Amino acid sequence: MIPHLHRARLAGVVAIAAALACSNASGAPAKPVTPASVLAAAPDADWRTLDPHDLLVIDLAGGGRVVIELADAFAPLHLRNIRALAAARWFDGLAVERVQDDYVVQWGDPDGKKPLPESIEKAPPPEYDRAAAALPFTPLPYPDPYATRVGFSGGFPVAEAAGRAWPIHCYGMVGIGRDLNPNTGSGAELYAVIGTPPRALDRNLAMAGRVVRGMELLAALPRGTAELGFYADPKERLPIVRARLGDDMPAAERPRIQMLRETSPTFAAWVRAKAHREDSFFVRPANALDVCNAMPPIRGAGRVGM
Amino acid sequence: MIPHLHRARLAGVVAIAAALACSNASGAPAKPVTPASVLAAAPDADWRTLDPHDLLVIDLAGGGRVVIELADAFAPLHLRNIRALAAARWFDGLAVERVQDDYVVQWGDPDGKKPLPESIEKAPPPEYDRAAAALPFTPLPYPDPYATRVGFSGGFPVAEAAGRAWPIHCYGMVGIGRDLNPNTGSGAELYAVIGTPPRALDRNLAMAGRVVRGMELLAALPRGTAELGFYADPKERLPIVRARLGDDMPAAERPRIQMLRETSPTFAAWVRAKAHREDSFFVRPANALDVCNAMPPIRGAGRVGM
Repeated sequence: MIPHLHRARLAGVVAIAAALACSNASGAPAKPVTPASVLAAAPDADWRTLDPHDLLVIDLAGGGRVVIELADAFAPLHLRNIRALAAARWFDGLAVERVQDDYVVQWGDPDGKKPLPESIEKAPPPEYDRAAAALPFTPLPYPDPYATRVGFSGGFPVAEAAGRAWPIHCYGMVGIGRDLNPNTGSGAELYAVIGTPPRALDRNLAMAGRVVRGMELLAALPRGTAELGFYADPKERLPIVRARLGDDMPAAERPRIQMLRETSPTFAAWVRAKAHREDSFFVRPANALDVCNAMPPIRGAGRVGM
Repeated sequence: MIPHLHRARLAGVVAIAAALACSNASGAPAKPVTPASVLAAAPDADWRTLDPHDLLVIDLAGGGRVVIELADAFAPLHLRNIRALAAARWFDGLAVERVQDDYVVQWGDPDGKKPLPESIEKAPPPEYDRAAAALPFTPLPYPDPYATRVGFSGGFPVAEAAGRAWPIHCYGMVGIGRDLNPNTGSGAELYAVIGTPPRALDRNLAMAGRVVRGMELLAALPRGTAELGFYADPKERLPIVRARLGDDMPAAERPRIQMLRETSPTFAAWVRAKAHREDSFFVRPANALDVCNAMPPIRGAGRVGM
């Protein structure tokens, strides 16, 4: 088998064609519209630059950096806590303590010994859903097993039913750990989804945002072998060097990340292209798309999303 | 914060209560029915012991072992190839060559240099779906965005529409890589899903089975930095020491793994308990369950599934 053929074979496996420039007013034969071609043709106005004030930038031991876009709209009291914890540099020196396969990575204060700052509300009320009417909402035109409709609000995946709206536990979404008592999630323990979207958790925990850079670092951590994926030996924990808000960083160092606006024509075209794949690899398009496969693409983060 | 409370807090995060014995005919107050309590009460007859003939056992460099249950019913010609490759020990000495975050881990012949055995059909015809009537099927009572109904057949997740049935790309499912030409997936390149179920791939590739042990090893591999998640440096590849069928192993060494029968009363009760969570952690059950969150639990593999 010659390398060229083999390279083509491998490339074909991935179901992502290389980005193709869209044909425009030229007379060239129409090329297939693919998710990549739609993104390549997007005007800059369809991309939103993430506000440094909304970014939680976590530097991990070993040099890795994880950036979370905070979602204030869904759980404002919890988010006030997280912002206060970051401002106080409370997470600095704590650790990633738990990695459970096909579920979550969790970080915070593994030994539960670090006092929370005075300004923190230690047991904010449950903020698991809110009035749907108060949120902008761009629906997906496809059904969902769990809700009347699903879509996006402010870049985040959202479900709606009976006048209420709530964020969805898609891959990369960040939630706020709590005790059995719903009023115990201070924001001091956070987790990110690293597997099948655990939709049973929707509406049962407050959510903090979405990992917009460095998800591949969290998801590739060794799984913990103690119950629930906690690391059995404290030496296995991955220390957090520092966690701060983007606007607490020197301007030149702030992450520059863009997300496709879900309200843009490009996003609608991208969803259509993902649902009705025309890429030459696909023999039978799904003609549908679930919400967690429609997370708004990110750029400036190493690569443009699928 | 005292350790006991902290331990409770951490445990609460996980949304999995400890296994509770079901109350039976005694007069004790009813305990909540949880997924764990249902499994703990399952009779042995509801568990199926996986046949060594159906197991592909892959030993990785470093001592890790991955076990795949082969799914012959969906793509019999492709599976005949995979069985022949394993019998010929063709995978021995090859490698995991690609890890793309939130997508797939892929292994095979990274340099495309190893000749296939004579007995291999190099380009079996597409076997991406088949007549639904020919497959046993246990439906889930919840809708799916992509199909008329979804459920399980022989332990594997399956979708149905218009008289056709096909396996679903849930987390841990194993597919057969191919070139752009649908007739080019010999079985020599395999991949496992490590993120959001990539449902757009359903019905576009033949599927080989499900990882039933060692998924946490594949999913935690470092992501590749070359295009599509291929490892940029061949030194990053993880060698495959050997891959063989379970019945080619000495009897005492064969993996002993059980899966809950999807046709059993226990499975139906477990699905209900997952959809309608009564665990004390949950304040609002989802009252639904998607197919990839309903993958039949496995035991004898380190821990019972969630």
